[in-house]
Amino acid sequence: MTQSKTALVISAHAADFVWRCGGAIALHAAMGYEVTVVCLSFGERGESAKLWKQPGMTLDRVKAARRDEAERAAEKLGVHDLVSFDLGDYPLRLDDEDKFRLVDVIRRVQPAFMLSHSQYDPYNTDHMYATQVALETRMIAQAWGHNPGQKVLGASQLYLFEPHQTEQMGWKPDVFLDITEVWDRKRAAIECMEGQEHLWDFYTRVAQNRANHFQRNSGGQSSGRAAKYAEGFQSVFPRTVDEL
Amino acid sequence: MTQSKTALVISAHAADFVWRCGGAIALHAAMGYEVTVVCLSFGERGESAKLWKQPGMTLDRVKAARRDEAERAAEKLGVHDLVSFDLGDYPLRLDDEDKFRLVDVIRRVQPAFMLSHSQYDPYNTDHMYATQVALETRMIAQAWGHNPGQKVLGASQLYLFEPHQTEQMGWKPDVFLDITEVWDRKRAAIECMEGQEHLWDFYTRVAQNRANHFQRNSGGQSSGRAAKYAEGFQSVFPRTVDEL
Amino acid sequence: MTQSKTALVISAHAADFVWRCGGAIALHAAMGYEVTVVCLSFGERGESAKLWKQPGMTLDRVKAARRDEAERAAEKLGVHDLVSFDLGDYPLRLDDEDKFRLVDVIRRVQPAFMLSHSQYDPYNTDHMYATQVALETRMIAQAWGHNPGQKVLGASQLYLFEPHQTEQMGWKPDVFLDITEVWDRKRAAIECMEGQEHLWDFYTRVAQNRANHFQRNSGGQSSGRAAKYAEGFQSVFPRTVDEL
Amino acid sequence: MTQSKTALVISAHAADFVWRCGGAIALHAAMGYEVTVVCLSFGERGESAKLWKQPGMTLDRVKAARRDEAERAAEKLGVHDLVSFDLGDYPLRLDDEDKFRLVDVIRRVQPAFMLSHSQYDPYNTDHMYATQVALETRMIAQAWGHNPGQKVLGASQLYLFEPHQTEQMGWKPDVFLDITEVWDRKRAAIECMEGQEHLWDFYTRVAQNRANHFQRNSGGQSSGRAAKYAEGFQSVFPRTVDEL
Amino acid sequence: MTQSKTALVISAHAADFVWRCGGAIALHAAMGYEVTVVCLSFGERGESAKLWKQPGMTLDRVKAARRDEAERAAEKLGVHDLVSFDLGDYPLRLDDEDKFRLVDVIRRVQPAFMLSHSQYDPYNTDHMYATQVALETRMIAQAWGHNPGQKVLGASQLYLFEPHQTEQMGWKPDVFLDITEVWDRKRAAIECMEGQEHLWDFYTRVAQNRANHFQRNSGGQSSGRAAKYAEGFQSVFPRTVDEL
Amino acid sequence: MTQSKTALVISAHAADFVWRCGGAIALHAAMGYEVTVVCLSFGERGESAKLWKQPGMTLDRVKAARRDEAERAAEKLGVHDLVSFDLGDYPLRLDDEDKFRLVDVIRRVQPAFMLSHSQYDPYNTDHMYATQVALETRMIAQAWGHNPGQKVLGASQLYLFEPHQTEQMGWKPDVFLDITEVWDRKRAAIECMEGQEHLWDFYTRVAQNRANHFQRNSGGQSSGRAAKYAEGFQSVFPRTVDEL
Repeated sequence: MTQSKTALVISAHAADFVWRCGGAIALHAAMGYEVTVVCLSFGERGESAKLWKQPGMTLDRVKAARRDEAERAAEKLGVHDLVSFDLGDYPLRLDDEDKFRLVDVIRRVQPAFMLSHSQYDPYNTDHMYATQVALETRMIAQAWGHNPGQKVLGASQLYLFEPHQTEQMGWKPDVFLDITEVWDRKRAAIECMEGQEHLWDFYTRVAQNRANHFQRNSGGQSSGRAAKYAEGFQSVFPRTVDEL
Repeated sequence: MTQSKTALVISAHAADFVWRCGGAIALHAAMGYEVTVVCLSFGERGESAKLWKQPGMTLDRVKAARRDEAERAAEKLGVHDLVSFDLGDYPLRLDDEDKFRLVDVIRRVQPAFMLSHSQYDPYNTDHMYATQVALETRMIAQAWGHNPGQKVLGASQLYLFEPHQTEQMGWKPDVFLDITEVWDRKRAAIECMEGQEHLWDFYTRVAQNRANHFQRNSGGQSSGRAAKYAEGFQSVFPRTVDEL
Repeated sequence: MTQSKTALVISAHAADFVWRCGGAIALHAAMGYEVTVVCLSFGERGESAKLWKQPGMTLDRVKAARRDEAERAAEKLGVHDLVSFDLGDYPLRLDDEDKFRLVDVIRRVQPAFMLSHSQYDPYNTDHMYATQVALETRMIAQAWGHNPGQKVLGASQLYLFEPHQTEQMGWKPDVFLDITEVWDRKRAAIECMEGQEHLWDFYTRVAQNRANHFQRNSGGQSSGRAAKYAEGFQSVFPRTVDEL
Repeated sequence: MTQSKTALVISAHAADFVWRCGGAIALHAAMGYEVTVVCLSFGERGESAKLWKQPGMTLDRVKAARRDEAERAAEKLGVHDLVSFDLGDYPLRLDDEDKFRLVDVIRRVQPAFMLSHSQYDPYNTDHMYATQVALETRMIAQAWGHNPGQKVLGASQLYLFEPHQTEQMGWKPDVFLDITEVWDRKRAAIECMEGQEHLWDFYTRVAQNRANHFQRNSGGQSSGRAAKYAEGFQSVFPRTVDEL
Repeated sequence: MTQSKTALVISAHAADFVWRCGGAIALHAAMGYEVTVVCLSFGERGESAKLWKQPGMTLDRVKAARRDEAERAAEKLGVHDLVSFDLGDYPLRLDDEDKFRLVDVIRRVQPAFMLSHSQYDPYNTDHMYATQVALETRMIAQAWGHNPGQKVLGASQLYLFEPHQTEQMGWKPDVFLDITEVWDRKRAAIECMEGQEHLWDFYTRVAQNRANHFQRNSGGQSSGRAAKYAEGFQSVFPRTVDEL
Repeated sequence: MTQSKTALVISAHAADFVWRCGGAIALHAAMGYEVTVVCLSFGERGESAKLWKQPGMTLDRVKAARRDEAERAAEKLGVHDLVSFDLGDYPLRLDDEDKFRLVDVIRRVQPAFMLSHSQYDPYNTDHMYATQVALETRMIAQAWGHNPGQKVLGASQLYLFEPHQTEQMGWKPDVFLDITEVWDRKRAAIECMEGQEHLWDFYTRVAQNRANHFQRNSGGQSSGRAAKYAEGFQSVFPRTVDEL
């Protein structure tokens, strides 16, 4: 029996995985990866302004709506498993039990690579907190003495996906991924985010401009490949290779 | 006819390519790459102390000795073409004609990747100057209006090889290359550097410790590959990929 | 009825707002701003050495003395509202209830801009913690789902005021404010800080030297304005303008 | 007679001023500023690939075509004076006489602010060289002993306009300018760049996404102003103000 | 009676003090310093893989083995006092009582200098957390109002010792210490770390290569002192001197 | 015969050595050091505004006046040798012959340490250029093949002295030097700078505030030494020590 390759996304709020790495999810799903997405919260307090502007809105109704959007988007992208931790947002907080629960997911998935937020974000402290937690739980998942007997994690790369205002976050992409062939799926997932319609075209333009960067960095005007849509990522750890 | 893959090293002084990327050269040569090495100078004034301590030494004799060392080392490594620009060192200087000569080499080689020094080096301003020249000539080689009719360069990666005191240079490797299978060749090339015998064991230890880093970053105690010798490199430009 | 403009200072210890932005407070108060100052602690444990050297001193007496100093200084500066959270210092700690209390203040004030500490301070971890809290509570104050019905915060600038050893904190001012016309008030407020008399002249000199920087950056020897006293601030967020 | 306000753009190649600050030029021209643009070169060798792909092309014909494009774009934007230094590109070089000629322009214009490239650009060393020259000539223009009798320059801000791949250049905008009302002019100027049609939509998307950043930083979902097109800039020097 | 000089090491896990500053400990002990080492945890969960691979292993047995190793190593190095806080690792956590206990140690020791980890470590969040705690408890130890009557701490330097992959941690040494004369003791202490035998030679090579750096920075080929083993450290705070 | 210790200052303009390290010069001179000062230019064009405002001023008269000021200041400070290279300023330029002349000075002096400007200065490109030259000539002075037979330089520390607006230059002091006992000499030297009287008190305040930093970093309120005047310096290279 062939073992599937796997990947893991750690998303502070329900919609982040769609805007920031929906293409990577769909592309790897299409290649046969089983992609697990953990949403630490639904973004119910801080990223659901449109819902809250409706009269009589309640926290439970917002969460239900956001969960529904996330599930529909995950389906469009071919997410293998969408895990909602429902920990609350603005601020997001994980106690040790929450972290151990995340470690369990990491170990169960044994991801070839992980995806999370930028390491700095003065606009949204939940985002940088999620990345801090990703690093901490990755470390715990590697500890032989944590739940001995479980399979420990290897050295999965942690990619930081694109934040909303890249330069303000000190985020610098070192990998561009061509997502042209799965763009329709990403756009379909984006359109599930009914509460944030003002961002649909914004992130379409991001993908188009990243495709220009893809082309430039693969050869530019002499030999660059003409991607139409791309996503950028920043690696936290060095790569190990047999050929440069 | 199959086209060989190619690579290009731009080395400020004759010995730099041996200590800093001799393993990468030998490994890619063994894989069928044609690796060209440009030595901008012989390091005759600044990196030949042992020779200068001999009575009656002259600049020409130092240069001849350094050229000889470089040629023997290049042969051990399987260098396809060793090009000595003989521009003088401490300080190294290139005028526009020298730069265009380097552009000619770049275009002729059409390297899949290039290798040069760190971008900062307060101990050795020749090193950072060589990298500045590498970036400038890479840009000129991409210009359609420079010697129209020549084949322009695509978007070759520029890797920065390991400087002598990495932390002082702000150098941070993002790639580790396993050079175990060609280590004997690198050590043989190192031993051609008779004037700098005090560094033979130093750079052997560097390669051994980088192998530990290779293993850590490829999985550590759970699944890391046990390289015995490795080299580290820092990428200047982002990569373009179809799979993370 | 005309709405006053407002500003908010978040000060880790009782005296910080005086040394670091007393001029900005007095100047904006004079312009009609209502300036609210939140002192998260009195600095009773860590910044009251002179008091603790008196025999028989108690924590309550130190806090009372520090509160009294802060109130007198606030009056000199024209502070609209001085809010003492009395959370303790060295270390300063805010639990979620404390943070929500601060969010309430932010929302009530609806500040045109906020002021707090530098983002790094190895000498005083309370300072950098206060800024982290300022960013987190600013974010919560912007969340439509936090206490729905309250007026949410817009995009107030957060200015970082001058720390004691600027270069060690990585603090870089991008705005200089001329406080010449309110200098007497700042000096009067400074002199309320009886326990830290050794800093009165230090911060007077800071203001005089920042005035030199003001003049340099407004035109220097050809056209610079000769401010006598100034304060510097670092902006966290970009500005939005209609004219450069 | 009322003195016009003035601004100065220093552009390495003929098209840079269009993509990177065409909106700022048009907007300030519309406000009555006299905006001077210095093109240090036409970008004839390195940024005219489309022309060079035509058979029988010559350097003079490329330069003429690029000059023509630049002049038409400048007219669309309302540029007061377009000064072509014709110094050659890839690489761009200025000797002391060239620099003094630029100093003469700076002094004649007496700009309220200047605009040039990012301080780092590994893809295009002409760009970072132009900024280095901008800083050096700004300094010379301030020297009372350089051509005594000429009016010396004050402390003009130097804004760095948006490079092509912002994160790779370490460029971080701290000002967003709303260019909605002059967008038609910028787009018209962009369309004068016939040799680089592949960038027309790229920079349109940049302007649209910067408008989203404008809105976020002016209040976001609670009170942000809905700009449709914007440009970002990074300030080199601190501002001097009377109100925060 | 002469007062001994003192130093304090704050080590996240039991073995860190051996690899990273064992030479500094042994050297200062030999000079008459009383060196106290605080191990915040035994590294029982995350740094004891070899033990956990044994069948039937338990947390208590791992901790006992690690404690034993640490004690034997401390004896080899001449540690004056080895204090095991036994707080657990992966993740390491200190509540306020734990921190105050550490403050008590700091005040009792009154160290001339302190040693701890790098400020960033994406591989091991325990390490950077320990340094954050070192800064926070150093600050509390300086507070006159914390346990009034105790002797407050002065301005002890905090040196950051060498992490495992220096460049990934942003660690930059500014001091090299010659440990040649105590190398035998450090190696003996290293060999007490039976569970991490794969690192014995790694850290021997580190010490040899740092000795090369020592020699280079003390004069290189003209006058450098030929240390055989050295350690590097990064200072957090500036030094105060009477001679440069 | 006992050899004197020596130091070398490389100053872009005639007055820099006074404001920025006059205390270090006077203090080391008083300790028996022979301190050589190289002024690469007189600052005649860019730093002599007051003179140029006089009617009928000429370049020669400005240079004579600046030379005279520098010589009188040097005498007050106890400078052993003041060497004026008279290379012109705004911009300062050194060709290879000028650099080799500076190398000759460095080798003749054999400084225990060197002093020059910050590595970045957007206000004054002469300053950062001087430091670049200091690093380059230091390297050449270490080359055994440059003028063989001359005594080569060892590994002198290069200290960067305080620029005018420290934070804008990215300058971070890591050493504070107590200059209290020679303050009168520094002030006397400062008062020789008749053309820049507006800076006399500015730099007096700098020295007083740096003394506060000296006290803080030598123990603060518990044990800090009460310096009255101090100077700060940033080290480029690591130190080699036998005791931390």
